[in-house]
Amino acid sequence: MTEYVIAVVGATGAVGKKMIEILENSSLPLKKVVFLASKRSVGKQISFQGQIYQVEELTPESFNGVDIALFSAGGAISERYAQEAVNRGAVVIDNTSAFRMHSDVPLVVPEVNEAALAAHRGIIANPNCSTIQMMVALDPIRQAYGLERIIVSTYQAVSGAGAEAIEEMTTQAQAMLNHEPVPTPEILPCGSDKRHYPLAFNVLAQIDEFSEAGYTLEEWKMMNETKKIMADNQIKVAATCVRVPVMTGHSESVFIQLKHADVSVKAIQELLTAAPGVTVQDDPSQQIYPQPLTSVDLPDVFVGRIRKDLDDAYGIHLWIVSDNLIKGAAWNSIQIAESLHRLDLVRVSDKLGGDN
Amino acid sequence: MTEYVIAVVGATGAVGKKMIEILENSSLPLKKVVFLASKRSVGKQISFQGQIYQVEELTPESFNGVDIALFSAGGAISERYAQEAVNRGAVVIDNTSAFRMHSDVPLVVPEVNEAALAAHRGIIANPNCSTIQMMVALDPIRQAYGLERIIVSTYQAVSGAGAEAIEEMTTQAQAMLNHEPVPTPEILPCGSDKRHYPLAFNVLAQIDEFSEAGYTLEEWKMMNETKKIMADNQIKVAATCVRVPVMTGHSESVFIQLKHADVSVKAIQELLTAAPGVTVQDDPSQQIYPQPLTSVDLPDVFVGRIRKDLDDAYGIHLWIVSDNLIKGAAWNSIQIAESLHRLDLVRVSDKLGGDN
Repeated sequence: MTEYVIAVVGATGAVGKKMIEILENSSLPLKKVVFLASKRSVGKQISFQGQIYQVEELTPESFNGVDIALFSAGGAISERYAQEAVNRGAVVIDNTSAFRMHSDVPLVVPEVNEAALAAHRGIIANPNCSTIQMMVALDPIRQAYGLERIIVSTYQAVSGAGAEAIEEMTTQAQAMLNHEPVPTPEILPCGSDKRHYPLAFNVLAQIDEFSEAGYTLEEWKMMNETKKIMADNQIKVAATCVRVPVMTGHSESVFIQLKHADVSVKAIQELLTAAPGVTVQDDPSQQIYPQPLTSVDLPDVFVGRIRKDLDDAYGIHLWIVSDNLIKGAAWNSIQIAESLHRLDLVRVSDKLGGDN
Repeated sequence: MTEYVIAVVGATGAVGKKMIEILENSSLPLKKVVFLASKRSVGKQISFQGQIYQVEELTPESFNGVDIALFSAGGAISERYAQEAVNRGAVVIDNTSAFRMHSDVPLVVPEVNEAALAAHRGIIANPNCSTIQMMVALDPIRQAYGLERIIVSTYQAVSGAGAEAIEEMTTQAQAMLNHEPVPTPEILPCGSDKRHYPLAFNVLAQIDEFSEAGYTLEEWKMMNETKKIMADNQIKVAATCVRVPVMTGHSESVFIQLKHADVSVKAIQELLTAAPGVTVQDDPSQQIYPQPLTSVDLPDVFVGRIRKDLDDAYGIHLWIVSDNLIKGAAWNSIQIAESLHRLDLVRVSDKLGGDN
């Protein structure tokens, strides 16, 4: 039986740690694991399946003999090392935005477009966290009733901005509760941007930097990635991405227009109850609806507040919540690895120099 | 010159306190102020324009000689005492939902429909906080370009649920930061409802109780009140109301469809810059956009993130933020009182038994 050497790049980060937890219980046959990170994390210890591993420094040579490399250490690291890993025979599953919109890189949510993996040329991209959970919830609806339009407003957790952002928001919250001066913000809403604002007990309508037409890069990711994953350039998608003072768990208020009129709430509930990766939490009479706090560390996408638009026979509203570090990042990456294994697509060599 | 006796009902509550602060600097000519509350607050002291006042117990007789009664002590108190106040000659400005949809009660945002005050029969209703700020921002656009549809997702502060809810959320946040057990929630998301959930570092897609068609009462308020204030039953409105862990300041992600195509962002910015009660904060290049924390204690409605929908020539997205206790409640009520004074509509007696 084939067994794999798997490398985790960014093993000490928020997503890397979740990848390692999930790998421990994965059905993937493992020959060996390698935990890679930047120089300053070298020597840190990671416990995995009862053994202690040392974190090793990421270099091009790290990928010699690696079959699957899971990247989650920022776009710059992926840009520098992903092709190196492929050249040395690894399949890369990249959790950054570096390659997502490249035409020869599959962008995959296994519940939605696993078949796109067949065309991979070494690098496979994991979509943006907010996009993934929306795709898992909406694709079954699209398949049944067609999807004309999506308008989404997000309520995104701070863990999506990394461990330093969590620390910054926590420190702010503590200072505000103690009526002490709040330290000058240095990271949120976006570490690479000029101005920084407090997030604790606040809401910031900016995730990532601003780009074309007044939309942020996060909003562009949701709009472009949706079209690529659903393989539908005609679908209308508009996103407003907002950071809220939640540690983990992204929420989304989503309006959709179907291609069929008068679809009932019950029909959508039944469809989603049967859908892979979705748990329906939708009972207004018992105040049952998805919440970020109750979604933490769970692999599913939770959907509730399913309602008909009262003015539009084609309109449906939904509330979609999932753990942004699990299904939004680590679990989706491991799922891709499991799909590659099941479909016998882990080998890179026969792909290189093959069809375009 | 006419001078008024003004009563504040619910003087010790979160909104009542803000009303008193704003009254201190109001242009309304005051003869006397009376601060009313329930029995347990009697004897509490309130400082007003350099004098100390005692809180008095609310009884029907409290309204003898009162010209304007500002109610903000919950719907049950308004239902019991508002007509009593009117019968004794007071004009009631009611900040609860008790009378908002009554056909003979004007529902007023002065910037939008001040003219509706002329038909009052003693009671005037102050709209829901989330509705008010949306109306102030959208009405100038409606007047210029027509408004076909509104889809709004809210990010509402806990102070909208009252002082006990603020206390509950603060206690939860402190416990979570200390890694201590969180006390069992007893108020949020809705004190009158069966189940309660933590709001600290969480997001709750429920405000007020659930009602028809899976929408909450808060969502119904936004949908129905918008139609009444804009005097347009054809306008399509869909709301998803969400509580976020913010102390004060409601935010709204709003999508609108105009009746004119291809209206530019610049045109909307110019229109809103000139609009009463609106401050435009909209410069992506400088990361300028409205935030709840920067809106606290300010009377204006702040608008930013104005963008064209990229698939819909009639579509515009906006981000609207305002202090829910000020423009969303206390300031709008005092503005109504100032309008009544300016329009010479404070007298009730000649309205009773008049035209229907």
